[in-house]
Amino acid sequence: MANPRSQIFFTVCSILLITTTIQSQTTWRDEGDFPDILGYTTLVCDFHTHTVFSDGTVWPTVRVTEAWREGLDAFALTDHLEFNDYEEDVIINLERPHQIALPDAQDLDLICIKGAEISRKMPPGHFNALFLTNVTAVKCDSYQDALKTAMDQGAFIIWNHPGWRQPEQKGIWYEEHTQIYNNGWMHGIEVVNEKTYYPEVQAWAMEKKLTMIGGSDIHGPTGIEFRLETGDHRTCTLVFAKEKSESAIKEALFARRTAIWVENKLIGEEQYLKPIFFNSIKVTQPQTLVLSRSSITVIIRNNSEISYELVSAGKIPGWKYPVRLTLPAHRTIYFTVSPDQKSVE
Amino acid sequence: MANPRSQIFFTVCSILLITTTIQSQTTWRDEGDFPDILGYTTLVCDFHTHTVFSDGTVWPTVRVTEAWREGLDAFALTDHLEFNDYEEDVIINLERPHQIALPDAQDLDLICIKGAEISRKMPPGHFNALFLTNVTAVKCDSYQDALKTAMDQGAFIIWNHPGWRQPEQKGIWYEEHTQIYNNGWMHGIEVVNEKTYYPEVQAWAMEKKLTMIGGSDIHGPTGIEFRLETGDHRTCTLVFAKEKSESAIKEALFARRTAIWVENKLIGEEQYLKPIFFNSIKVTQPQTLVLSRSSITVIIRNNSEISYELVSAGKIPGWKYPVRLTLPAHRTIYFTVSPDQKSVE
Amino acid sequence: MANPRSQIFFTVCSILLITTTIQSQTTWRDEGDFPDILGYTTLVCDFHTHTVFSDGTVWPTVRVTEAWREGLDAFALTDHLEFNDYEEDVIINLERPHQIALPDAQDLDLICIKGAEISRKMPPGHFNALFLTNVTAVKCDSYQDALKTAMDQGAFIIWNHPGWRQPEQKGIWYEEHTQIYNNGWMHGIEVVNEKTYYPEVQAWAMEKKLTMIGGSDIHGPTGIEFRLETGDHRTCTLVFAKEKSESAIKEALFARRTAIWVENKLIGEEQYLKPIFFNSIKVTQPQTLVLSRSSITVIIRNNSEISYELVSAGKIPGWKYPVRLTLPAHRTIYFTVSPDQKSVE
Amino acid sequence: MANPRSQIFFTVCSILLITTTIQSQTTWRDEGDFPDILGYTTLVCDFHTHTVFSDGTVWPTVRVTEAWREGLDAFALTDHLEFNDYEEDVIINLERPHQIALPDAQDLDLICIKGAEISRKMPPGHFNALFLTNVTAVKCDSYQDALKTAMDQGAFIIWNHPGWRQPEQKGIWYEEHTQIYNNGWMHGIEVVNEKTYYPEVQAWAMEKKLTMIGGSDIHGPTGIEFRLETGDHRTCTLVFAKEKSESAIKEALFARRTAIWVENKLIGEEQYLKPIFFNSIKVTQPQTLVLSRSSITVIIRNNSEISYELVSAGKIPGWKYPVRLTLPAHRTIYFTVSPDQKSVE
Repeated sequence: MANPRSQIFFTVCSILLITTTIQSQTTWRDEGDFPDILGYTTLVCDFHTHTVFSDGTVWPTVRVTEAWREGLDAFALTDHLEFNDYEEDVIINLERPHQIALPDAQDLDLICIKGAEISRKMPPGHFNALFLTNVTAVKCDSYQDALKTAMDQGAFIIWNHPGWRQPEQKGIWYEEHTQIYNNGWMHGIEVVNEKTYYPEVQAWAMEKKLTMIGGSDIHGPTGIEFRLETGDHRTCTLVFAKEKSESAIKEALFARRTAIWVENKLIGEEQYLKPIFFNSIKVTQPQTLVLSRSSITVIIRNNSEISYELVSAGKIPGWKYPVRLTLPAHRTIYFTVSPDQKSVE
Repeated sequence: MANPRSQIFFTVCSILLITTTIQSQTTWRDEGDFPDILGYTTLVCDFHTHTVFSDGTVWPTVRVTEAWREGLDAFALTDHLEFNDYEEDVIINLERPHQIALPDAQDLDLICIKGAEISRKMPPGHFNALFLTNVTAVKCDSYQDALKTAMDQGAFIIWNHPGWRQPEQKGIWYEEHTQIYNNGWMHGIEVVNEKTYYPEVQAWAMEKKLTMIGGSDIHGPTGIEFRLETGDHRTCTLVFAKEKSESAIKEALFARRTAIWVENKLIGEEQYLKPIFFNSIKVTQPQTLVLSRSSITVIIRNNSEISYELVSAGKIPGWKYPVRLTLPAHRTIYFTVSPDQKSVE
Repeated sequence: MANPRSQIFFTVCSILLITTTIQSQTTWRDEGDFPDILGYTTLVCDFHTHTVFSDGTVWPTVRVTEAWREGLDAFALTDHLEFNDYEEDVIINLERPHQIALPDAQDLDLICIKGAEISRKMPPGHFNALFLTNVTAVKCDSYQDALKTAMDQGAFIIWNHPGWRQPEQKGIWYEEHTQIYNNGWMHGIEVVNEKTYYPEVQAWAMEKKLTMIGGSDIHGPTGIEFRLETGDHRTCTLVFAKEKSESAIKEALFARRTAIWVENKLIGEEQYLKPIFFNSIKVTQPQTLVLSRSSITVIIRNNSEISYELVSAGKIPGWKYPVRLTLPAHRTIYFTVSPDQKSVE
Repeated sequence: MANPRSQIFFTVCSILLITTTIQSQTTWRDEGDFPDILGYTTLVCDFHTHTVFSDGTVWPTVRVTEAWREGLDAFALTDHLEFNDYEEDVIINLERPHQIALPDAQDLDLICIKGAEISRKMPPGHFNALFLTNVTAVKCDSYQDALKTAMDQGAFIIWNHPGWRQPEQKGIWYEEHTQIYNNGWMHGIEVVNEKTYYPEVQAWAMEKKLTMIGGSDIHGPTGIEFRLETGDHRTCTLVFAKEKSESAIKEALFARRTAIWVENKLIGEEQYLKPIFFNSIKVTQPQTLVLSRSSITVIIRNNSEISYELVSAGKIPGWKYPVRLTLPAHRTIYFTVSPDQKSVE
């Protein structure tokens, strides 16, 4: 028997008539267009956000609206466990952010992950624990107990902004981190936090087999921290998951299938970046080849959110073509290959 | 054996390395995204453009670059046959515009149609003849001879801007038009010229089975006549063709399979507009239905270039939902359907 | 003796070197450009905003950042007195929003007005009381007591969104409003709330000598409720004040020197709109008049935030000129006046 | 007695009524906002443009419309003297471009300078001769005769794109250039052509006292060669002139009072760049200094077309402030100076 809700839905649709004037409407979504790769679904995720339940300045539901508008598939609420800026005004209960945001997220088909930021002085600094079931239990006196409790809940744990409050903002790997790492309490690491990129941390990630994470660490409205109207976007982690579900994201994170999207850059392992590039573009040649013309025109469409810049890696003797080529996001360009007169002479 | 050109092309591709900095590049293409319908390919066409060979202000090759950048599939060069603003400076030969533009167009896979505008005082006014083989031959003393000569070349003939220089810019159907029509010398009619829409002409088109045409009638660079940077576009004719080829466009024009795209409006017959709308959108519901919630969220993606406004055509008793809904171009929106409390009480 | 702080400031400035690469920076301000008129300073104000202390979704400091970025000179925090959506999580103390926001506002030279929204069922509906000294005291059982207490504190009182929950959203003036008005407890009225314009309310304002107010009534981040990136802005009240100060705003409000800025419209009395228009534009003619040319070119610069559309109010016999003319905000346009050939013949 | 034209003009103005809906209008002007400096008027000029009278692709009048829309004060038409791409179609007469464009330019108060590009193989390459009275006469067999003839007409002569067709596009100063320079036939030099910047040429300009020029060298419509809709602009020369007139521009060019505006960069001598910067910005501090706060907020408004990036040139012990600061064009920003805690401890 048919679902009565579906019936209602279709009835609603059938009684809408179409006209074509533009009307202002504020709540639209800009899809984050990235190709699926290697048989996986590419999900746009932000694993680092705050609310008024620690030191953010928005109610948890704002994080849902923002995630939807900005084309995210999933986000985590990761308020600080150890401190709160608004104790005078807000009753702290760290189960609440997720509890408040979840219904709105579900309505919009967004995955809302329950998390928390274990926030200590450096070392060892801050750690996001994702996929928690009981945030309050993770609030322990020692960071070791906190991390262990998170582990017991099956958490995926990320060392956040490793260069924070370090000289020249460069990450320093302390003895404490070796212990955490050896205990198996560190699975991912923020190679990018907000807009800060830590190249040394990327090297650690590759060497120590940690999952590369890029987190927005937003405290205010995204539109204030990132200049969305100029085409800017929050820093995200692309997750290559078996499907769009919380458990599939968790599996992909542990399997290290991620890349980072910051400004107009993709940061990650070649095995993922290469197929993203090749699945983003489509190369064609004009149907009608003009035989009398010695040059060849090549047309390239870029269907992704990223503008790629190509740099010629060598030189074919006897032919001329652009040494650099930009493929702007969501645009088509062309270039010509023609005989190099000089080499002919 | 492999085409040596293809080999060159692939070699070029393989020696390009990828980086991701944005670089300014001016010649990109914004694809005109319209869905294919009813088994036909939707082609974006402009059948009315001028160059310095009559009273336009650009060289014919500019029309190629512009067509490419603006996402057109085909365009016609239709300089005035009977007058020229630049006789002192330009040697008039109306075979030239097409001859000059064609090679560039072919390189970019654009269809460049040879045409001319038979330009007389009203009545009968101006007529575009498309698919000509010899433009010069169409320059005759009487307009009847001109139209007849064009017909002999197999031309598709359009009455342009029927409201031009008429009181209040309203089209007047003169005796001369009846004769032309009865002779079978009029196949299409401009329901929209530049940005001027003639509703009375649309009525004639439906009644007399004339093909509806929208032409830009550009004389200067498109970027000057249309404010492209604000998202504006030149007025175009959408052609529903069996394939992307000049002969397929001709077949579709005679078969009256067109619609007009002007500003954010589509003008045409319901049989074409309806499938454009339904092929533009994708309706989904969240995977996770929250059973405890009585409201239903509906998500609609609009993949087309057009922003649609939906207006509720009726009312389902007991349910509340938006009376108006805008589906912005290339965006996703949602709305909720919920029980109407008042009707429950 | 020089202020030591100023010294520090000038030292800082002198050790800054200039380069000219663009760097992303998120916290800039778009000045709301409106001309001063009639010897008054034109201030851009929003007298209707909410925070998490009633049913808004942002911390009070967000209202400061937003006001600064959006070019406001002043704003009021007007949380609901009678209800709160977050009682489970937020400790309600209505002195707090202003107390929290004030220091940030002062740093940025923004005027932050302490207010509250007396929120009852219709009639009499909702009323904003501005310039309160003790918000808590205004929380009374009867709305009469609430309004009277606000009056005792010297408040300026506005009837908000008079069409709210009325049939077809049209304002209804109930017996209760006559009483409030006769008591002198109503000084202003929202002719525009968010984007809803009540023409009947504008008529009341003119007839009953109430100050015309436009309020954003924002609950979420402005960037979510208004589509700022498309050039949209929150609904504001322009106040023509003797200086930029809280007391000057209060004086101007009681003196009814306001206009409303909503979308691209100015709503108000002719005595204020006329000088705004004339102080916005600058008309020039080319230095070099070409005497051989019979036409005259007129150049108009619009320095304001508003795009004006001019419509010809009559006709000068013998001359041709555009019947409609748009003066886009912050742009210059020209038009030509030329002899009308027909009238000459 | 009053000018009858002025009367007509004022009558026209008085019969225009004001409404405020936006209407699409294509021909507006974006003023190039640069401050006047050192008692001079800052004029935005392009001394290098082409038309269909050599190898450009637009009619001369297009250059007027573009200059007006892009906020220029003056431009030169500099078609190639020695070659023409359209000999088959265009009758070459190099007095024509200026003759055709001048009336339109005068109507819009734009200065249209008669020029030509003496175009030889390198060495010595291409030279623009500005302020010519007879272009045809400059077409001589030897480049020496051409330059001398231009000199006899009082021309200002610029060596164009000195790196053109040189290895790595670097300018080479040949023996021929020494001769031209010693003869007094070279007054300016293109430090920037289109978007190519020649740093070595800037060094020559400073050393040899040549006027620094930036030219767009546009051949097609500006909107195709520069991506105007993304905020890009054509490369221009800023001229610091005694007034807005052709003779004042000539005087300023010979006196070397110029700077180059390319992308978001200003290139020139410190004596001009410094006052441009300081006349662009306005620094204020909040009226209400909050004494209890130890930090100071500084507000900076940038009224110019250029986004400046400030880099701290030193360090004031005991105080913290941003090391880098961007002042976006036409925006206001703020930063705070506060006691450095560490230095206090």
